[in-house]
Amino acid sequence: MPEPLRLGIAGLGTVGAALVGVLQRKHDFLAQRCGRPIVIAGVSARDRTRDRGLDLSGVEWFDDPVALAQSAGIDVFVELIGGDEGPAADAIRAALRSGKHVVTANKALLARHGVELARKAEDKGLLLNFEAAVAGGVPVIKAMRETLTANTIQRVYGILNGTCNYILSEMEATGADYADVLADAQRLGYAEADPTFDVEGFDTAHKLAILTSIAFGCRISVDDIYVEGISNIASADIQAAAELGYRIKLLGVAQRTDTGIEQRVHPTLVPLEAPIAQIHGVTNAVAIDADIVGRLVMSGPGAGGEATASAVAGDIADIAKSRPGHQQAPALGTPARNLTPYKQARMRAHAGGYFIRLSVNDRAGAFASIASRMAQEGISLKSIVQHGTSAAKEDAGQAVILVTHTTTESAIRAALKNIDVDGHLVSRPQMIRIES
Amino acid sequence: MPEPLRLGIAGLGTVGAALVGVLQRKHDFLAQRCGRPIVIAGVSARDRTRDRGLDLSGVEWFDDPVALAQSAGIDVFVELIGGDEGPAADAIRAALRSGKHVVTANKALLARHGVELARKAEDKGLLLNFEAAVAGGVPVIKAMRETLTANTIQRVYGILNGTCNYILSEMEATGADYADVLADAQRLGYAEADPTFDVEGFDTAHKLAILTSIAFGCRISVDDIYVEGISNIASADIQAAAELGYRIKLLGVAQRTDTGIEQRVHPTLVPLEAPIAQIHGVTNAVAIDADIVGRLVMSGPGAGGEATASAVAGDIADIAKSRPGHQQAPALGTPARNLTPYKQARMRAHAGGYFIRLSVNDRAGAFASIASRMAQEGISLKSIVQHGTSAAKEDAGQAVILVTHTTTESAIRAALKNIDVDGHLVSRPQMIRIES
Repeated sequence: MPEPLRLGIAGLGTVGAALVGVLQRKHDFLAQRCGRPIVIAGVSARDRTRDRGLDLSGVEWFDDPVALAQSAGIDVFVELIGGDEGPAADAIRAALRSGKHVVTANKALLARHGVELARKAEDKGLLLNFEAAVAGGVPVIKAMRETLTANTIQRVYGILNGTCNYILSEMEATGADYADVLADAQRLGYAEADPTFDVEGFDTAHKLAILTSIAFGCRISVDDIYVEGISNIASADIQAAAELGYRIKLLGVAQRTDTGIEQRVHPTLVPLEAPIAQIHGVTNAVAIDADIVGRLVMSGPGAGGEATASAVAGDIADIAKSRPGHQQAPALGTPARNLTPYKQARMRAHAGGYFIRLSVNDRAGAFASIASRMAQEGISLKSIVQHGTSAAKEDAGQAVILVTHTTTESAIRAALKNIDVDGHLVSRPQMIRIES
Repeated sequence: MPEPLRLGIAGLGTVGAALVGVLQRKHDFLAQRCGRPIVIAGVSARDRTRDRGLDLSGVEWFDDPVALAQSAGIDVFVELIGGDEGPAADAIRAALRSGKHVVTANKALLARHGVELARKAEDKGLLLNFEAAVAGGVPVIKAMRETLTANTIQRVYGILNGTCNYILSEMEATGADYADVLADAQRLGYAEADPTFDVEGFDTAHKLAILTSIAFGCRISVDDIYVEGISNIASADIQAAAELGYRIKLLGVAQRTDTGIEQRVHPTLVPLEAPIAQIHGVTNAVAIDADIVGRLVMSGPGAGGEATASAVAGDIADIAKSRPGHQQAPALGTPARNLTPYKQARMRAHAGGYFIRLSVNDRAGAFASIASRMAQEGISLKSIVQHGTSAAKEDAGQAVILVTHTTTESAIRAALKNIDVDGHLVSRPQMIRIES
């Protein structure tokens, strides 16, 4: 029997416990597929006494993940602790220093330190695998960093956060308001007690930052992402969008433009017939527009212990299948030393269509004045809908919905500012970008 | 500068010419991403004098692909000749014998000799990569053989032939008959002059045979696939299916059952809201149901020189990114020596729903007699629709559409035989399986 691949697993939360379960119940199956056994040699977690329903007899316990990462008894360090600093970062650095391959699902850490860690891994001929960090069980990292290597990617975008997609899907299905659906999602375990990180788009931004680097061969730049969450989406927006043939999704979008790379996370109108519009609930989906292959779309479970463990186990199996000590594939698709600096496109220069929902005073001339303010900025309107009914529960205004042809963010903002100055608006205007 | 990776490319048809174009215009880009240059050291094709619009100056020409495969001047042999025997097979065997990695897009060859070639490659520590052989530019091979390694797959199915999907999409969109749409497809270059290989399902079967082996860790068994093409699909079927909430797609389906593995290629009713129903035209799509990750769906261009070349180039880049001579990943996901024998499930035992379109004599009692023949076989009906209009242009009968709940293939066949014996039918009954 060939030498086993020995793992050190740090972090036994939902994903870590699921992974241990998978590796134990699939031990023989994996040995057959990989040509050698995969064994859990050591684990580390905060609380040794907690009952996780796992049989860890015969597995060495480390209180300190750094000690596990450096242990001579492991070949691969699997980091499932989480967090962009602290023990996760320390342990991964220690693992690479001591010649261990690293598998991680930690998007926050990679968004912050991915280039540095990739460089360290490559300098030592080690693998840094992180399929689970973006879109959970969907193999989008592998597709982009390996299969699409020869492609110049124009745009990559997707539904990268299951919590937001669940909330938006439920708002559409039930007609309920954001706050009520969020409360339900929290009860069902689809949203955290403090949902800020998910609903305000930060989780999507971390994942997008990683995709951007692989897509465009540039350094990761998570701080340059324009981020807007879903907490301002009203059921009136969802209804109006549906009437116009659109569905609202929280998308992460990275796009090559003439002035640089756009990275943005925001609620987006997508045409009802687009594949990405068909993605409901906690499912994730990624679409890639590339020069040689055209458009690829991939979808599947984006979160949850089992789906994430599936991707982590695949990363481990990749290492098990290769001859030890001789792998060398760049973590970010391009060797870290060859990544170009990130050149940010200005968000004000973003070009696209816009959906605008205004709540206006029912005053003669408001409609004409709004239209002329749009025209003044050179914005051409695709449709304009005036509802007789009130715009939203929150206020007493009348709803005016505008859909523009392609224009720029700065033109839209200027027009909305002027419309506000003109005194027609009862409440803050809603502005949602359209992705075709 | 590190050593270049030297390619020998055999076959300069649509895909070969597209690949040469990609490798030449992306030379610097690929060198940066792979960490070393990829060079075309030799080529081989039947006709040296033909103008392919390629600059092959400085590239060694081989009249014999076997000589190219054995040349000391190459590291990787890229087989784009096609055909399941003859020069393609001879050259791949020669390449593996002389220690060259192999990249191929040849599904017919792999369906026939894949296990033997995988074994030869693995015995020598060589890679046999063939992402382009199934679903063109869609990275389904990589997803299944690498990312999903820890998953036990229950079912893999998909739209694997662009020609058939184009024809079915057009029949639905235009209401035209099969023969007319086929003629259009031939004019547009979406179907061959002799379309048999595509429209009768054989191309789909080759691709399915490869997916089945990777999905279930069994040997390839292309001759055990139940194959039915689309040439019997009438526009009346497509209309009736649409009225009942279904769309007709030619699917390749491989499924684990209690009695073995089902492999089948046939027109299939899929629910209109299923992701696979949204795949139009020449696009391919694959859905995978797996125990840990759940369901993954991938779609993209399934054919064409550029999309296929994208996948071939990705396979080459994988080799370029690794340290030469040390890769070892099993071609079929499981080492060839560990593949289990293929255990065929009997098609007559297939369980599923069925769509039946009958053209019946307008005779009192026919309806009751048909229903009682179905009941006799224990078949429970989900819906039964009797159109006042004629069933199809071809005959003067009246259309009766039945949709069954889950039953077996043998029950359906017995019932249809009895209905025929009863003398109610004006023409051969149409029977199309439903996939949920």
